[in-house]
Amino acid sequence: MGACAFDSAILGGLYHDPEISPLFTDSAEIRAMMLVEAALAEAQAEAGLIPPEAAAAIARAAHEVQIDPAALAAETAANGVPVPALVAAFRKAMQAPEHAQYLHWGATTQDIMDTGLTLRLRRMLEIMETRLNRLLARLADLAEAHAEQPLAARSYGQAATPTSFGAVVAGWGGPLLRHRDRLAEMRPRLLAVSLGGASGNLSVMQGKGPELRARLARRLGLHDPGANWHTSRDRVVELAAWTTALSASIAKIGEDLILLTQTGISELRLGGTGGSSTMPQKQNPVAPSVLVALARFTVALNAAVQGAALHRQQRDGAAWFTEWLSLPQICLACARSLAIAGDTVAGLTPDPARMAAGLEGDGLGLIHAEALSFALAAHMPRPEAQAAVKALCAEARQSATPLPRLAAERWPDLGLDHTLTPQAQLGTAPEEARAFARAARG
Amino acid sequence: MGACAFDSAILGGLYHDPEISPLFTDSAEIRAMMLVEAALAEAQAEAGLIPPEAAAAIARAAHEVQIDPAALAAETAANGVPVPALVAAFRKAMQAPEHAQYLHWGATTQDIMDTGLTLRLRRMLEIMETRLNRLLARLADLAEAHAEQPLAARSYGQAATPTSFGAVVAGWGGPLLRHRDRLAEMRPRLLAVSLGGASGNLSVMQGKGPELRARLARRLGLHDPGANWHTSRDRVVELAAWTTALSASIAKIGEDLILLTQTGISELRLGGTGGSSTMPQKQNPVAPSVLVALARFTVALNAAVQGAALHRQQRDGAAWFTEWLSLPQICLACARSLAIAGDTVAGLTPDPARMAAGLEGDGLGLIHAEALSFALAAHMPRPEAQAAVKALCAEARQSATPLPRLAAERWPDLGLDHTLTPQAQLGTAPEEARAFARAARG
Amino acid sequence: MGACAFDSAILGGLYHDPEISPLFTDSAEIRAMMLVEAALAEAQAEAGLIPPEAAAAIARAAHEVQIDPAALAAETAANGVPVPALVAAFRKAMQAPEHAQYLHWGATTQDIMDTGLTLRLRRMLEIMETRLNRLLARLADLAEAHAEQPLAARSYGQAATPTSFGAVVAGWGGPLLRHRDRLAEMRPRLLAVSLGGASGNLSVMQGKGPELRARLARRLGLHDPGANWHTSRDRVVELAAWTTALSASIAKIGEDLILLTQTGISELRLGGTGGSSTMPQKQNPVAPSVLVALARFTVALNAAVQGAALHRQQRDGAAWFTEWLSLPQICLACARSLAIAGDTVAGLTPDPARMAAGLEGDGLGLIHAEALSFALAAHMPRPEAQAAVKALCAEARQSATPLPRLAAERWPDLGLDHTLTPQAQLGTAPEEARAFARAARG
Amino acid sequence: MGACAFDSAILGGLYHDPEISPLFTDSAEIRAMMLVEAALAEAQAEAGLIPPEAAAAIARAAHEVQIDPAALAAETAANGVPVPALVAAFRKAMQAPEHAQYLHWGATTQDIMDTGLTLRLRRMLEIMETRLNRLLARLADLAEAHAEQPLAARSYGQAATPTSFGAVVAGWGGPLLRHRDRLAEMRPRLLAVSLGGASGNLSVMQGKGPELRARLARRLGLHDPGANWHTSRDRVVELAAWTTALSASIAKIGEDLILLTQTGISELRLGGTGGSSTMPQKQNPVAPSVLVALARFTVALNAAVQGAALHRQQRDGAAWFTEWLSLPQICLACARSLAIAGDTVAGLTPDPARMAAGLEGDGLGLIHAEALSFALAAHMPRPEAQAAVKALCAEARQSATPLPRLAAERWPDLGLDHTLTPQAQLGTAPEEARAFARAARG
Repeated sequence: MGACAFDSAILGGLYHDPEISPLFTDSAEIRAMMLVEAALAEAQAEAGLIPPEAAAAIARAAHEVQIDPAALAAETAANGVPVPALVAAFRKAMQAPEHAQYLHWGATTQDIMDTGLTLRLRRMLEIMETRLNRLLARLADLAEAHAEQPLAARSYGQAATPTSFGAVVAGWGGPLLRHRDRLAEMRPRLLAVSLGGASGNLSVMQGKGPELRARLARRLGLHDPGANWHTSRDRVVELAAWTTALSASIAKIGEDLILLTQTGISELRLGGTGGSSTMPQKQNPVAPSVLVALARFTVALNAAVQGAALHRQQRDGAAWFTEWLSLPQICLACARSLAIAGDTVAGLTPDPARMAAGLEGDGLGLIHAEALSFALAAHMPRPEAQAAVKALCAEARQSATPLPRLAAERWPDLGLDHTLTPQAQLGTAPEEARAFARAARG
Repeated sequence: MGACAFDSAILGGLYHDPEISPLFTDSAEIRAMMLVEAALAEAQAEAGLIPPEAAAAIARAAHEVQIDPAALAAETAANGVPVPALVAAFRKAMQAPEHAQYLHWGATTQDIMDTGLTLRLRRMLEIMETRLNRLLARLADLAEAHAEQPLAARSYGQAATPTSFGAVVAGWGGPLLRHRDRLAEMRPRLLAVSLGGASGNLSVMQGKGPELRARLARRLGLHDPGANWHTSRDRVVELAAWTTALSASIAKIGEDLILLTQTGISELRLGGTGGSSTMPQKQNPVAPSVLVALARFTVALNAAVQGAALHRQQRDGAAWFTEWLSLPQICLACARSLAIAGDTVAGLTPDPARMAAGLEGDGLGLIHAEALSFALAAHMPRPEAQAAVKALCAEARQSATPLPRLAAERWPDLGLDHTLTPQAQLGTAPEEARAFARAARG
Repeated sequence: MGACAFDSAILGGLYHDPEISPLFTDSAEIRAMMLVEAALAEAQAEAGLIPPEAAAAIARAAHEVQIDPAALAAETAANGVPVPALVAAFRKAMQAPEHAQYLHWGATTQDIMDTGLTLRLRRMLEIMETRLNRLLARLADLAEAHAEQPLAARSYGQAATPTSFGAVVAGWGGPLLRHRDRLAEMRPRLLAVSLGGASGNLSVMQGKGPELRARLARRLGLHDPGANWHTSRDRVVELAAWTTALSASIAKIGEDLILLTQTGISELRLGGTGGSSTMPQKQNPVAPSVLVALARFTVALNAAVQGAALHRQQRDGAAWFTEWLSLPQICLACARSLAIAGDTVAGLTPDPARMAAGLEGDGLGLIHAEALSFALAAHMPRPEAQAAVKALCAEARQSATPLPRLAAERWPDLGLDHTLTPQAQLGTAPEEARAFARAARG
Repeated sequence: MGACAFDSAILGGLYHDPEISPLFTDSAEIRAMMLVEAALAEAQAEAGLIPPEAAAAIARAAHEVQIDPAALAAETAANGVPVPALVAAFRKAMQAPEHAQYLHWGATTQDIMDTGLTLRLRRMLEIMETRLNRLLARLADLAEAHAEQPLAARSYGQAATPTSFGAVVAGWGGPLLRHRDRLAEMRPRLLAVSLGGASGNLSVMQGKGPELRARLARRLGLHDPGANWHTSRDRVVELAAWTTALSASIAKIGEDLILLTQTGISELRLGGTGGSSTMPQKQNPVAPSVLVALARFTVALNAAVQGAALHRQQRDGAAWFTEWLSLPQICLACARSLAIAGDTVAGLTPDPARMAAGLEGDGLGLIHAEALSFALAAHMPRPEAQAAVKALCAEARQSATPLPRLAAERWPDLGLDHTLTPQAQLGTAPEEARAFARAARG
């Protein structure tokens, strides 16, 4: 237990994200903020607010100057926010005070930090989308390949009726399809430049505030929100909600994998399992457990971000700092979930023999009770059929005789041999599996 | 403190919702489920699965039969879910076993409950949308009316720079505009029929599962999701996330109102305030406090719903019951927030004199520091200007002399009398207020 | 899904608490507040602050007067709090203005509400303690009766090594023993009278504030906290934390029961199970699922109460109202958990044959791997032993031959027949079960 | 926004904890686990389970061997837990296979990790206790020094009645006194060794399990819990609950400081404030804002830890990993809160003139309404008095005349000049302040 699993060297193989973690570092934050300052200066030069040479010098420096994060610590500790220290260090490093004075012209800390964050989130969403598509593709393959593989559906842990493994996989993937749609809807809202100045009204921009915001957006490839959003945290909240829901949908897969790989169930095999320090035989479903943990952690942190939307007045340090403490780890947890789930799904192997055994339940074949009740309902009132089946289930339990055999003896003329098979009861499962596969690839 | 504020008679004036509460009652739930059973029977008759007379009898009974919720309690306690008891009571009340046997044909509890809930949520969203539009309309009026009314923007509770009250109101309303968009996006996803049968594959529907689901959707005016969603809880999760974010956005207004009505600030007056049991003078911002409380409560409950998306296998009683405990109160809290906010915003009266006093800050007019620094920056390097202003602020504090007066003495030629006024520093605030008003009405 | 499961008639058999629910009703709240007003008046008469006849009249009326909760609604909606309306209604009902004027003398709303709540919490804790002891007694019986019953311990769902069912039960009960200790520690802190007057300093009590608080405490059988605690919400927070932790500890039992009753595992039988609306054979672990749901709900609501400890200044309506929305349901959820767990544990029946089957795992007896590795380690270096066992496990899996048989063939001289039995590997399990039983009863 | 504020170089001045952070690092975790392994080996040698020379070699190596955290990453990624890799690396580094084989004899990963964590938590609690005492001492000084300093108590942000600043400080400190008591109660429960072996029953310890656990506890200076607690997470839960409640109690101070330093209120001055990147005058209450953010973050994470108490069967990777993700940051947040609060309180300076102004409210002195009503109640029935005062308050507002002046004119004979002063209305406030100071120091 280091402070933060995502930065732990020991736990790095599970929690460190080689693509996303670099986006959430001190240096990535500094670089992003400098790029925002550069784009702002250039936009201001275009708009005639600051000298073009100053903008050029600032833009050049933004790419060249190296700012040591630790050098900002003392001043940041006093101010709570890093921008005053960054601006001072940036100006000093430029060694051209005549240009440097135009750095951060009329902007406020939150403009720079929120826009810098948005740049990093843009890249993050690209990576997440790629991973989501990859996960969907692997689920699609799995659903299609096993569209007709029967296994026992389970409700409350109890065998319910037969279904197909492909349909189970489609059930995992359905929410992910919708999360992909939600991402598309969220993106233009989220990826918006923030530029408001001290209190959001760009008062020192000489009437060119809206023009500047539009120019800045264009330069950075972000959307122009058309208004100040310093205190309108719904964008951040939506991102946290999306990542949380996505992590939770993935963790449902994790829960199912833990259950399906239990000793005595063993209907699925994982590509990789974990060992114990003392039990040589152990094959622990580590990755699925991590998926669940990441989601539980994310759900908790999400509450902090949601609560931070109660952002007081024109800037609320307490609420804003709460976002900083929470949002990066929500993002990292979701990114890890996507990556781990992709690998895990790729390694899954269903065990048809064990699935067949699972359909037998505790050897009693009670899973066929519903089908039997409907077979009987063609010949007697349904409540009567249900009562008869319920009684036969009890007899099966008491006599340790399979329900299908008892039923075939009781109603020899109904052709129950054909009805009370898993294959006869798959219903829409195979087609649902294939339809998901098509949608996931489409 | 009754068990549930939303049902408390004492607290009813604040927490009871005369429009939404009836949707979350035992009888509303029963009625909705019966309508689903009726529509299912009719769809099945159309599809040739059950006799048309049976469907007609079921549909008729669904409107006529009265089921006493308490009569379902004992059996529901055993089963955890009310549908077995409801189906039994419904069948019995029909007094026509030959038809009644076709009730709930091939459906499972979750089909009926989730679809019944969806019907109620549809009505709820209509009401919420109306309230949201009403709230936006009132915010639009307020923003427009006070688009140019100066007041002190505050960050960290400290006077920052001048802005307009209309812009503050626009800041309240901006997230609500986007929540309105999100509602439009969410609605077709959320309002989907659930029909899967025992394990989601409609296995006893004789191959007509998809047709049936489509027919049922059409009859109920819901969407056909094209797949089973028993265990895909992302729809419910999205609703909880949307209501939570909406409640939080509204509570931000509440927080601001509490702050702006503080004794000694008093820049706003509320239409209604609360009294104390012992202090005759008290005018407590009750409604704003309720908005904040509802949001904090909702944020917490939302975590339960998000976590319930870790829904194990083909039905997870624990996860599903968690939704039941949480979701209705999230909905009620959001609905109350919308209603209370609408009333509260309608009653707001800004106090221009107090806003003017607020702009004076502690009598020192330090709020003009940024504007002064930019005025000076036209005549000296900006860091020098900022340092000069910082020093002058210290002098103002020490000598208890207003900053604008000190500045005018120091730099008599800069026309600071015109610069260092609130009106001169409103920037985009008035237009932002008006733009919001247009968007809110659009 | 009614607004509140605890008040739902349909769900009442599971969620309604006939002992605790009456404590969280409008009328219970009113009665408790009236008793506090009565005791305050009597204490003030004793201290010479108000006329004894007035106190007597108030005390008499507190027992006789009936206040209709709904009649307080309108005024409560304006004030946010019910006490101004209650005091007015109480005074009016007394029909003795000369006495009634001394009602609520120098007290504030929060004094009356918090003390009234505390009276109800006192009763609640008595009931909870009784239930906790009953649950512990049943766990003690179970642990003792099955102290030596072997079953497969499971980690990550995988068979680990043998242990005894009694030890599993002791593991359920251990946290409950400590929660009992924590209750004893919490009680004197929590059950403290609140009396501070308008702002906490009892300024109108003519210097007799501390005396009065002590007298009030004595009369109500509560502790005198020695200070005002209007804004010190740590007591309420501690109660919420205790109930949450207790609910969660109980829900761990629920989780285990769901897992141990799974079809294909079936090592335990529940006394009562739930049926399905369509699957005649279903025996759903309803009660365990409810335990998990109640805990997940409680964990979420607890966050609201914890956050409400950020109680601003001398009274924070938003924070206080958040407590009202959350605390009663936390209490009810915990109370239900205790009751349901008590019943559920009483109905548990282990199935020795299925436990034996569970020890066989997937027929391979890999559960004996650790014991084998230690048996070998007496004859070879332990890493070598572990590697040999790991290889043999792989061989067992590949050849579908039980590990003990392979081991006995490989090392015929080690007496592994005696070592590789569940009974030989119970270790401290039986004694741990019995020690728990003693402690639970002690 | 780095991944983790506690490890950020930029934000380090606020969030990095030079004393506590080193306890939550990879190397601290490895070292602690090695010390546990060493103590276990020594205890086992004492008990005759392993050769004394082996124990000595292990103990020596535990102090000498350096294990590179990154070298454990790959194997840890496979296993989810670091102990298998650590044991392998430790054994290899010992270069004495004959001794190294006795390392980790009969223990399981959780024994080593939980006990290692407990060792670090012990140190953490010592540091936290020191900080808590320091914070209490500073609050004591402040309460005592300003025991009689009047200021306006505020409820709902509205001036209520006068109280003293010392009493406000005592209100901050009261919960901390109780948290100190709770720490004393929690400590012996929390600081318990964990030793259970594979499934908790120490089955390979040749009947010496309990003896070994006691010996291990003695060697490490921890308590012997007398039972296995692998799956009994109530200890961890209690720690999380305590730190959460403590952080929240501290954040209440933060909230009050933000409010009391608002421009226009300014009744308190902070020792250190933060500047803005664009507003030269800004003096932002940064530290108080950080306190609030840390508490909101902690409250959220606490929910993850509470939920992880639903720990399935004999080891639940998902639940356990959730603890790892959450607990360290809860601890760090609380530790930072204690440190920052200590510094912040030390720097507080009340401004008597501004407090006097605050007592005047909006110049109307309505804060004296309650005192006036009680002064009048000596001469007329109290409801009449209250109504008269309420009317006079309205008159004061309308005529913009101070209430005390209006009252003195209306009732010239009541000596209201002496009654309607802040000093006359302090009640128990001064003594409450002093009593707190005594308790805090005691």
